[in-house]
Amino acid sequence: MERSTIAAAFREIQNSICSQLETLDGIARFRDDPWQRKEGGGGLSRPIANGKLIEKGGVNFSEVFGPLTTQAAKALNVQADDFYATGVSIVLHAHSPWVPTIHMNIRYFETNAGQWFGGGIDLTPAYLDLASAKHFHKRLKEICDRRDNGFYPRFKPWADDYFFLPHRDETRGVGGIFYDRLMPSEDHGIEDLFGFTCDVGELFAPLYGEVVTPLRDRAFGPAEKEWQLLRRGRYVEFNLVHDRGTKFGLETGGRTESILMSLPADASWRYDHHPEPGSPEAETLTWLKKGVDWV
Amino acid sequence: MERSTIAAAFREIQNSICSQLETLDGIARFRDDPWQRKEGGGGLSRPIANGKLIEKGGVNFSEVFGPLTTQAAKALNVQADDFYATGVSIVLHAHSPWVPTIHMNIRYFETNAGQWFGGGIDLTPAYLDLASAKHFHKRLKEICDRRDNGFYPRFKPWADDYFFLPHRDETRGVGGIFYDRLMPSEDHGIEDLFGFTCDVGELFAPLYGEVVTPLRDRAFGPAEKEWQLLRRGRYVEFNLVHDRGTKFGLETGGRTESILMSLPADASWRYDHHPEPGSPEAETLTWLKKGVDWV
Repeated sequence: MERSTIAAAFREIQNSICSQLETLDGIARFRDDPWQRKEGGGGLSRPIANGKLIEKGGVNFSEVFGPLTTQAAKALNVQADDFYATGVSIVLHAHSPWVPTIHMNIRYFETNAGQWFGGGIDLTPAYLDLASAKHFHKRLKEICDRRDNGFYPRFKPWADDYFFLPHRDETRGVGGIFYDRLMPSEDHGIEDLFGFTCDVGELFAPLYGEVVTPLRDRAFGPAEKEWQLLRRGRYVEFNLVHDRGTKFGLETGGRTESILMSLPADASWRYDHHPEPGSPEAETLTWLKKGVDWV
Repeated sequence: MERSTIAAAFREIQNSICSQLETLDGIARFRDDPWQRKEGGGGLSRPIANGKLIEKGGVNFSEVFGPLTTQAAKALNVQADDFYATGVSIVLHAHSPWVPTIHMNIRYFETNAGQWFGGGIDLTPAYLDLASAKHFHKRLKEICDRRDNGFYPRFKPWADDYFFLPHRDETRGVGGIFYDRLMPSEDHGIEDLFGFTCDVGELFAPLYGEVVTPLRDRAFGPAEKEWQLLRRGRYVEFNLVHDRGTKFGLETGGRTESILMSLPADASWRYDHHPEPGSPEAETLTWLKKGVDWV
């Protein structure tokens, strides 16, 4: 299948997600920030800020290609001189501490040595809402099972392992699914992997709506807001210290503003902060571990 | 010379700095948070928060030793089985956007393959005050020149190179001095390097006082505070993405709370933020580059 077909589908997914999110938000509009990469390709970053629901976020599309530097080839562990990559990347931070931060990424990568898909969606609540976390995983499992009963059992623990802060010994949130370097095989040809990756992209906006709707109008005060900011500090730590995409992007001269669009509007740190035992904040921390069976 | 002599001097420097800073602040007191490392050694973290001057910071002492893991030996580029390290590390974030963030570190490292000193002080203003930056560098040059006229010309550009954010193409602040792996030589024996490193430690508190005093009572409003928070976002980016000490510490299982004490109470990010041309904020950015001759 043609690269251009994949890139066109990803562009369409970006568009569709932005329209659905504008409707969900009610007042905010995505801004268009197109950019070009001098070595080849470019992208369309679509930041959003100061909405009714969404405080800060973005839905980014990119399609980049050209020579693969030695450094990038090493970081990717591939032996190739050229590459082609296209993807959609999303992070949304809501105003309300009750509404989780959500992240989605779908990507396609190609070199003369091979081609693969990657993707995933994961959820980071400041306050765990059990019903919401269960529903989130159930919906992810459904789209996995439609393609392969083996996907969710592989991609759910993959998210647990990926979205993990070793220096805090906690997961970033309640996880979701994550997969990378899914190559065409006898079980799943290129069309099938492409189809699954589009399923992930197309699920994103409705799923976010389903997570948000029961939580968005809940009242909150300064104590909840403070806890949200501390949890956002952890989000920043994950993205800047551990996230492979962020590190790879910054190290290989990617577009800084698009890469760091994942950061929240505000984040806080306190020395050795611990929530009061038995509080909803402390309760949330008990769920931030690998291996929880949400479905 | 004995390790214990160096560690004792560093402890004394920590004590002396904390007393001077408490006097300077006026109301805040350092808290004692001693910790032990199961593989050998430990430290005394001394966090401070919510002062009259200082919003968040700490003055940390550590003395750690034991087997050197393969990972740590590789990261340090040394061939040795055991190590000993002691040091004092400081970061202070003030409430006022007019008062720069300051960082100081002095350290001694020893293996069966050799021994060295490292250290430095650097200044990160949200708003550049030219007189203050010049005075800061003048004082650093003085203590360098007392030992060796060649120190400042080596250690000042070293700070420019070290405290640099490639992904932003800007320095963290106005720099200062930085040196690492200073080994005993014919020019400077171990006593001399130790003496210089103590000079750096002893200069810290008076120098911070001299920087702070003309600036601390200047009035500020929400616009200056917002700019300070955005600049703190850059401070977080530097520490989590680039700082070798932070990375090394987190990767080798160092004490997370002590390592991340350098982070500010609050930090902000906006997509593709640019200050108004000609504003004091924009003026500050023009100084955030390598090679400025401040003295």
